[in-house]
Amino acid sequence: MSEPTPTTAEVAADFTGLWLAGEFRAAGEKYWAEDIVSVEPRALPDGTGAECRGIEALRKKNLRWCSTHGIEDLSIDGPFVTGDHFALFVDMLIAHAGQRTPHSEIAVFTVRDGRIVEERFFYE
Amino acid sequence: MSEPTPTTAEVAADFTGLWLAGEFRAAGEKYWAEDIVSVEPRALPDGTGAECRGIEALRKKNLRWCSTHGIEDLSIDGPFVTGDHFALFVDMLIAHAGQRTPHSEIAVFTVRDGRIVEERFFYE
Repeated sequence: MSEPTPTTAEVAADFTGLWLAGEFRAAGEKYWAEDIVSVEPRALPDGTGAECRGIEALRKKNLRWCSTHGIEDLSIDGPFVTGDHFALFVDMLIAHAGQRTPHSEIAVFTVRDGRIVEERFFYE
Repeated sequence: MSEPTPTTAEVAADFTGLWLAGEFRAAGEKYWAEDIVSVEPRALPDGTGAECRGIEALRKKNLRWCSTHGIEDLSIDGPFVTGDHFALFVDMLIAHAGQRTPHSEIAVFTVRDGRIVEERFFYE
C-alpha cells in the first residue's frame, strides 16, 4: 500500500522540523522533487549559480556549501502555508573561515504532489 | 516612444515606496497585471476568498478591506529581489472596529514584463 500524498502543511511542518534539528540534507533528500529548482538572489561566492535545476545540482550545491560553512543559533518563524507554498523566516549565525556572521532570510517553497519543486531565498 | 519595461528590482523599489507612503491602491493600479492572482492563507472575514483572480477582483478585495480597516505604524524590511520575484517583511498595526492589532506578514510578488502577476501573503 502506498502512503497518501502529504499536504503542503504536512510537508512544511516536517521539513521545518528537520531544518530545526540541523538535518538540512535529510530534509532535502526527503522532499526535493527530481526537477526541483533552487533560486538565490545572486551566484554564491563558491561558484554555485543563482539558479540550480535538478536534484543532482542541488546535492552538489548543498554539499559544497555545507563542507565549508556551519550553521549556529538557528531560529525559524513559520512555516506559514499559503496555497501550495510555504514560507519560513530564518535567522542564523553562519560560521565560515573562522568568522561568525549573522544571516536572516525569507525562504519560500513550492510544493507539488508532496514534494518541493522550487525553493527561493530572499536576503540582502 | 514607449518607456522601457522596468526590471523586477525597479518594480520592487517603486512598489515598496508607494506602500511606505500609504499608497496601496495606487501601487496596485500602477503594477497589477490584468490577470494578477492574489493568494491569502485563508478566506478573509469579510468574505473575500483566499484566492482572487484578475484585476477587477483585486480592486474589489482592496476596496472592501480598506473601507473597514486602517493601517498604522507600517514598517517594511525589503524589498528583497530573487529572480523575477521580490519579497517584503511587513509589520503594521491594523485598525479595525475600534481595535488595533499587530500584524506581521511575508509578502511575495512575481513580476513579468514590468507588472505584478502574483501576490502571495504568508502569516499565521
